[in-house]
Amino acid sequence: MPSRSSPTGTPGRRLPRRIQAWIPNWMQHYRRDWLAGDLSASIIVALLLIPQGLAYAQLAGLPPMAGLYASIGPLLVYGFFGSSMTQSVGPMAITSAMTAAALAPLAAPGSTQYLLLAATLTLLSGLMLMLFGTFKLGGITRILSLPVIQGFSAGTALLIALGQTGALLGTAWRGDTVLVLAINFPAAVHKLHLSTMLFGLSGLALMWLAANPASHLLGKLGVADKAAQMAGKILPLPVMIALAALLATLDNTHQIKTLGQLPAAHLGSSAITGLNSLDLASVQSLLLPALLIGLAGFLQSITVAQSIAASRHQTVDANRELLALGNCNLASAIVGGMPVSGGFSRTVVNTNAGAQTPLAGMLSAIWIILALWALLPLLAFLPQALLAATIILATARMISLSQLRQAWQFDYRDGIAWLMTFGGVLLTGPMVGIALGVGIAIALYLWRSQQPHIAVVGRVAQSEHYRNVLRHQVETTPEVLAVRIDENLYFANIANVITQINTQLSQHPASRQLLLILSAVNSIDYSAVNALKDWQRELADQGITLHLAEVKGPVLDTLRHGDFLDQLTHPPFISTHAAMQTLSPQELDYSI
Amino acid sequence: MPSRSSPTGTPGRRLPRRIQAWIPNWMQHYRRDWLAGDLSASIIVALLLIPQGLAYAQLAGLPPMAGLYASIGPLLVYGFFGSSMTQSVGPMAITSAMTAAALAPLAAPGSTQYLLLAATLTLLSGLMLMLFGTFKLGGITRILSLPVIQGFSAGTALLIALGQTGALLGTAWRGDTVLVLAINFPAAVHKLHLSTMLFGLSGLALMWLAANPASHLLGKLGVADKAAQMAGKILPLPVMIALAALLATLDNTHQIKTLGQLPAAHLGSSAITGLNSLDLASVQSLLLPALLIGLAGFLQSITVAQSIAASRHQTVDANRELLALGNCNLASAIVGGMPVSGGFSRTVVNTNAGAQTPLAGMLSAIWIILALWALLPLLAFLPQALLAATIILATARMISLSQLRQAWQFDYRDGIAWLMTFGGVLLTGPMVGIALGVGIAIALYLWRSQQPHIAVVGRVAQSEHYRNVLRHQVETTPEVLAVRIDENLYFANIANVITQINTQLSQHPASRQLLLILSAVNSIDYSAVNALKDWQRELADQGITLHLAEVKGPVLDTLRHGDFLDQLTHPPFISTHAAMQTLSPQELDYSI
Repeated sequence: MPSRSSPTGTPGRRLPRRIQAWIPNWMQHYRRDWLAGDLSASIIVALLLIPQGLAYAQLAGLPPMAGLYASIGPLLVYGFFGSSMTQSVGPMAITSAMTAAALAPLAAPGSTQYLLLAATLTLLSGLMLMLFGTFKLGGITRILSLPVIQGFSAGTALLIALGQTGALLGTAWRGDTVLVLAINFPAAVHKLHLSTMLFGLSGLALMWLAANPASHLLGKLGVADKAAQMAGKILPLPVMIALAALLATLDNTHQIKTLGQLPAAHLGSSAITGLNSLDLASVQSLLLPALLIGLAGFLQSITVAQSIAASRHQTVDANRELLALGNCNLASAIVGGMPVSGGFSRTVVNTNAGAQTPLAGMLSAIWIILALWALLPLLAFLPQALLAATIILATARMISLSQLRQAWQFDYRDGIAWLMTFGGVLLTGPMVGIALGVGIAIALYLWRSQQPHIAVVGRVAQSEHYRNVLRHQVETTPEVLAVRIDENLYFANIANVITQINTQLSQHPASRQLLLILSAVNSIDYSAVNALKDWQRELADQGITLHLAEVKGPVLDTLRHGDFLDQLTHPPFISTHAAMQTLSPQELDYSI
Repeated sequence: MPSRSSPTGTPGRRLPRRIQAWIPNWMQHYRRDWLAGDLSASIIVALLLIPQGLAYAQLAGLPPMAGLYASIGPLLVYGFFGSSMTQSVGPMAITSAMTAAALAPLAAPGSTQYLLLAATLTLLSGLMLMLFGTFKLGGITRILSLPVIQGFSAGTALLIALGQTGALLGTAWRGDTVLVLAINFPAAVHKLHLSTMLFGLSGLALMWLAANPASHLLGKLGVADKAAQMAGKILPLPVMIALAALLATLDNTHQIKTLGQLPAAHLGSSAITGLNSLDLASVQSLLLPALLIGLAGFLQSITVAQSIAASRHQTVDANRELLALGNCNLASAIVGGMPVSGGFSRTVVNTNAGAQTPLAGMLSAIWIILALWALLPLLAFLPQALLAATIILATARMISLSQLRQAWQFDYRDGIAWLMTFGGVLLTGPMVGIALGVGIAIALYLWRSQQPHIAVVGRVAQSEHYRNVLRHQVETTPEVLAVRIDENLYFANIANVITQINTQLSQHPASRQLLLILSAVNSIDYSAVNALKDWQRELADQGITLHLAEVKGPVLDTLRHGDFLDQLTHPPFISTHAAMQTLSPQELDYSI
């Protein structure tokens, strides 16, 4: 077990070491004055988690209860393994949509096989996260760049919101991608259910009013910012309950679909008991989805946990978070749930509501169990359209075009990465989309370094400084061409660098010495050195001698492993000025 | 049409422009004194191409004649489109093995369907190369690093040589990967054909003696190096003919397999006439193989063409080579051949034998046609074991462990790239292997830049120079921590950089000013800037002010697009010294 960091920072000394190692520091040092905050946060988060759990289970194609089970187990487990004090774990919109995409080709939503596959997917995802944590691969999410993360979130959110529009309007409009949605659109329009549509749209409007303008209003009326923000998250719940009650008291002659009688708790149908009834081929086809869902969930968890920890001067250990999330997913699989992760919205609510330790989350789990027990019969009256409205409200916040604008303004290539990932998700779904995103981020980085900047430099009069001849008034010598290379040299750009410098050489036909200034070259690879060696021989054939200057320590170390330096007529010069003093014809004055 | 460069460098002015545009410069300016070289080279290359064509067709699972057809058409076409003066085009070992790997799942080798698919594959490959050339994507092969290219060649060569061992020893030992070969090994050993084995092994030994020690001997006896080298390439042919003649004159009671009666020329069964009998699914499944075969062929062509052109002070245009190779493959498809490319061995022979222009290749094609006409009946007596020996001799040269040693010595990561690509090809075949290679090259480059070097710097006494405190005797100020970052900042490494500097800050608790020296940062992306912005706010919370110095022009331009610079309390300093003069407490003397 990794050691536990405590909010107070002092290690516990009261219990025998072996037991102590299993009890998190925050528990060993729990202070009574934290309890009020933890308690109030636990209640508010439970109020948020119940409708979210039901809605995300529906999104994943699972019975609504699965979403609640997946909220209970992980919350209890996270307290023991997590390193964040305020992270709140449970089902999330993106991972739920990815779960549906992964399972749709394998079984019919709602079937026993589907439940079993969902639990297996959760189990595999948890095992993979634990494996990553064990090998300390907490840095894995760094292969995704910010525009790719943003484009992925926005694309998935839009896809989820569009996918829920059918349930909101009372028609069967389904599809994993915008293409399928577009194809199914005409048929869906024909089957619109008028009263569901009216009910759903008014529900959406009322819940939106409760979430946004109402919380603004509270803020203006003098309620503290954090409290107003929280109210915005919680207020849609009473609106939803009121609307459901209204519909239930009316004679439901309008045939607006409700959740209906829920099946009894299926805590027994867990992944563990059902695993032997699965064939190996199904499990194999779940491996890649499990990995991608695990990574997407971890990415979301670590991002929110780190940003909140930083604002509270605490730290979060990425590798411990991997282990913790892995354990949470195992717990979810065992109770028959679905993939879980930390979520932005609920973690912010938890923090603002005063949570001090993971006790808040553990108490939330207890409230959810009580609610399950007391409210189960009432859930039957919950209209599906309102759950769809919940999902649409949650995902609409994630579609931010101002992110695209900012990325584009900074560098159009970052904007392209945003757009390509966004479009990729819309066209291929979140599962292929996230893989595509990794490829796009890397391809753009390579594109950037592939056409490097080089500058012919000259001497700033009476100094040891050498600057770009195009930007400064400098002195040059026709016999010596001095070129600064502003990029690392590696297989993908070395040919371009050589071509660019050859072009410069043809424009300076008097050059007999070529000086490469490597002050901005931080690394050089085998392919680049071999290309330089070949080029050095070609230049020698043309009567031009190649020299190096300002080679950095690590690059020099690398070059010493090969024989390139032995081919040079002069060892690398320590500075451009030293090189110019040696290489320039004697009659020129290169002293200061 | 792109303009043609001529060996003499002057544009032609004798013909009407429209006709002239279709006639390559070298034809318009052909000098009589080039003819002797072209003629002698054409004969020697034809002698080399005939056994190679037959052998590589067998390797691709095609009738031997397909290899000869594929040598004729492309050689005639290359003269009109190519930009290299000495490139020799035809079937190659690696692309032949890739052809077999691509077609094996789709049809039985030797069947009419197989021939049709081979011609279609060649056609698609040619069209793709032309498309790449049209869009000027000649730089496409730069996504492969040198160790990856070397590991790919060595792995494919070993796989080809192992695959031919069955034919050499007279047993049916087959397999696309080392795993399949290993599984089939016991059965193959049981069916060894003793007399074929003895004949094949002696043939291999004699041909090897003719190729290597004999040419060394000639060199020692005073024959010019180039001539001795050429003799090494050509001598195995008479040995092969002699052995085949020997076998034919003996009563063949030993049942050593020969090519047997060859089917009549199938110039009619071309891709064009057969295309409409192919289903779309087959054509679709050929798209990716066609792309990879095209790229592998182009990679080999451009490498050898550019290295020879450089040694002769000529240039080769990668985009024109793409178009030329594309046309060559179209020609090969039309005559019912197989994918073609420039080849290292034959292009070197062509050059050393005195070729001055592509006329040498065109004449070779004519000799091959004559040979086909005159020698066709005799080919029936050629033992398959000797063709296998030809392939094994050609590929054995490509397996160079000294390349691995050199790459490893330079940087163990380049060695790993070599080994991983080599192993990947052996385990998955050349087709998946080349795709794997691209991934490995990029992953290693990212790995390299992911853990960048940073250095805390101090002032070299009485100077404006600042150096690494670990490597030099320098002066520092406790209030100011100056850190130089030696890598471009982007999404994959920014978190590591911040963590490293945070560690330095915790070791210098008195620091109130943090100065980042960006002299070696050539680019910065959106993700990195956003991380820096968040970090700047966290540092401010801790009472530490962030400053920048020595920001390069292009990086400064990029930073101006966002609002990061506005957050800073002081604009970026022009030099580290200027920053230290401003930021250090007044009592310290920072004048020179």
